Amino acid sequence: MKDIISSTECEHLISSIELMAHHLDSVAKSLDKEDIRQMITYIMEADSIFVMGAGRSGLVGKAFAMRLMHLGLRSYVVGESTTPAVRKGDVVVAISGSGETRSISDLGRITKEIGATLITVTSDRDSTLGHLSDTIMEIKGRTKNDIGGYLERHMRGEYSHLTPLGTSFEISSLVFLDALVAELISITGASEDDLKSRHAKLE
Amino acid sequence: MKDIISSTECEHLISSIELMAHHLDSVAKSLDKEDIRQMITYIMEADSIFVMGAGRSGLVGKAFAMRLMHLGLRSYVVGESTTPAVRKGDVVVAISGSGETRSISDLGRITKEIGATLITVTSDRDSTLGHLSDTIMEIKGRTKNDIGGYLERHMRGEYSHLTPLGTSFEISSLVFLDALVAELISITGASEDDLKSRHAKLE
Amino acid sequence: MKDIISSTECEHLISSIELMAHHLDSVAKSLDKEDIRQMITYIMEADSIFVMGAGRSGLVGKAFAMRLMHLGLRSYVVGESTTPAVRKGDVVVAISGSGETRSISDLGRITKEIGATLITVTSDRDSTLGHLSDTIMEIKGRTKNDIGGYLERHMRGEYSHLTPLGTSFEISSLVFLDALVAELISITGASEDDLKSRHAKLE
Amino acid sequence: MKDIISSTECEHLISSIELMAHHLDSVAKSLDKEDIRQMITYIMEADSIFVMGAGRSGLVGKAFAMRLMHLGLRSYVVGESTTPAVRKGDVVVAISGSGETRSISDLGRITKEIGATLITVTSDRDSTLGHLSDTIMEIKGRTKNDIGGYLERHMRGEYSHLTPLGTSFEISSLVFLDALVAELISITGASEDDLKSRHAKLE
Repeated sequence: MKDIISSTECEHLISSIELMAHHLDSVAKSLDKEDIRQMITYIMEADSIFVMGAGRSGLVGKAFAMRLMHLGLRSYVVGESTTPAVRKGDVVVAISGSGETRSISDLGRITKEIGATLITVTSDRDSTLGHLSDTIMEIKGRTKNDIGGYLERHMRGEYSHLTPLGTSFEISSLVFLDALVAELISITGASEDDLKSRHAKLE
Repeated sequence: MKDIISSTECEHLISSIELMAHHLDSVAKSLDKEDIRQMITYIMEADSIFVMGAGRSGLVGKAFAMRLMHLGLRSYVVGESTTPAVRKGDVVVAISGSGETRSISDLGRITKEIGATLITVTSDRDSTLGHLSDTIMEIKGRTKNDIGGYLERHMRGEYSHLTPLGTSFEISSLVFLDALVAELISITGASEDDLKSRHAKLE
Repeated sequence: MKDIISSTECEHLISSIELMAHHLDSVAKSLDKEDIRQMITYIMEADSIFVMGAGRSGLVGKAFAMRLMHLGLRSYVVGESTTPAVRKGDVVVAISGSGETRSISDLGRITKEIGATLITVTSDRDSTLGHLSDTIMEIKGRTKNDIGGYLERHMRGEYSHLTPLGTSFEISSLVFLDALVAELISITGASEDDLKSRHAKLE
Repeated sequence: MKDIISSTECEHLISSIELMAHHLDSVAKSLDKEDIRQMITYIMEADSIFVMGAGRSGLVGKAFAMRLMHLGLRSYVVGESTTPAVRKGDVVVAISGSGETRSISDLGRITKEIGATLITVTSDRDSTLGHLSDTIMEIKGRTKNDIGGYLERHMRGEYSHLTPLGTSFEISSLVFLDALVAELISITGASEDDLKSRHAKLE
């Protein structure tokens, strides 16, 4: 193995990053602006915003909730210690590539029973979570057709190596949600100084 | 505010995603292959791999540690419940954009006292963590010079709005670390089936 | 309110602690030794031990999993970053006062589908989780009959104030699980030095 | 080992629980009421209450922060995703048996630089955290002198086995903090119904 490592030109690594860049460009083009406007409206009018996801989608959710807090909004991660009960008037954002994650769709159902608003960030509009949601924010999954030109030559036949377990949804939704925060900053006129003053000093 | 939302063409959002795609392309070009090979060697030879970071960099670390576990490596997140003591022969991966995060550089110092290997993923090689480390994996931060062509026209004057608190390092390092996993999969010959069998069924 | 605070003799606080001490004495008397022996056997023979619980019971589980790791056993908390998939040969310990916590009983069902061993620590043997389990470790809940003598006089009529949301189960199960670790230490002959060497130095 | 397990009368386990009950009784007697009143005053007057601790003391802190939230107070755990910056007017509660946990005493120092109030729950008043604090809530550690009568006969020579790594502080402080919540409920007149309505429905 030492030989393999010492001689690698890191092609898989570099192609993976380029492929992700390429994929993000196509995500940017495919977003539904009406859904974005709806999602922004729900978030700006919410009493509190709760975020949930399982596994790596849960980490994406935490990163988003952290930014909403920096922005001055009342935000919580489902399952953390001091997260209160969800009430009518709150918004719950679910993150699930397949839209079928069992624990998350169960919580989506409870969200609707409570009468709160459910937004799902997913690659599959036509899923359990999709059907439960008030707004679906669809983030295109990476498909074979994304790949063109020299990337196609590099990647052919090894596609599955480059997307172990579908990492592209998580990164795309993280980038999308950070970009949504940029839009919220522009709308609310929050300055970077505002954000910095809310940044945790104890960590 | 309702008017602003209903009329927005989501330019900030879309530009942010495109800018990130652009940035990732330039990260792919700027990586030091010798440092990557060194990092891979340390990881493949480690008894256990520990990952640490504060705030959103901590979330990036968790996502990376999760993937290493899927790959069949013994990996831990510093601070989680059942993470054991670090010993000689282990590798600690620190993630810090500035390389100056106090709590993380303190732990970096302890890592070196124990005699374990310290790898830092950072934008600043010339930092406290950088100076402590056995290998530095430098991930280019986003700079004004990244922006060219039509993005430059879109973005001018609003640059700071689009990178609230330096989000580009965290996303770049997440994409880099996922790409490193793709390289590790290629080197070790792990199949997607191997990965799936280690995926948590309880979550 | 300032007046109330400055004049309080802290009776509720002190009575609560005494009541908990009293309750622990009655827990010690009520434990089923055959169930304890069964639980110890399962744990000592497990490939890996997984612990799960919701809310404060989840924190009790984390504290227990941490101690098992100190003891040199391979232990994980369900839901943490690097927790692998459960397999046959593993033991899953569920902690749930009522035995009815939805998310935990769902995971209990999956545990049995996988063919792993399920142990439930609960106040109610006759519950959903109880019926799924290979071994039930019943921890007596606090009842009115616990209270006698001077405590009874202090407490009468204010009982519900002193057990907000049933805190007694969580503390009793934490004390029980720590005591189980003491028994495991005695059985395995692990010394305090062994334990200390596994104590995380990075936290 | 199977023989040892099948024949054990679980003496270590049962004695551990009884010893803890005994210890809690002595903790109840040794508390300083003036310090309790001071701690309650700070908590009731705080804008927000932040809780921090490392390892198992961190879990105790989370359990306490959760209860404060149930009580309707604005509480946060240092290090969780949406925990904001600490400001003047806030209270930070540090939990550390030795009062010397490095990461926690560093944060204690920052707390005082910010101008917030620092309360430390500890077994050692004369420690780094103790000297930094506005109020010290001393929780007696378990000592040899605690043991009398039949417990003494049972325990002699095996005392260290029963307190692996000083578990008594963590349990005592958890019981103390729950009892403090009982006192706060009595002072504020919150009913169990109030508490239940704030209990997380999504977990």
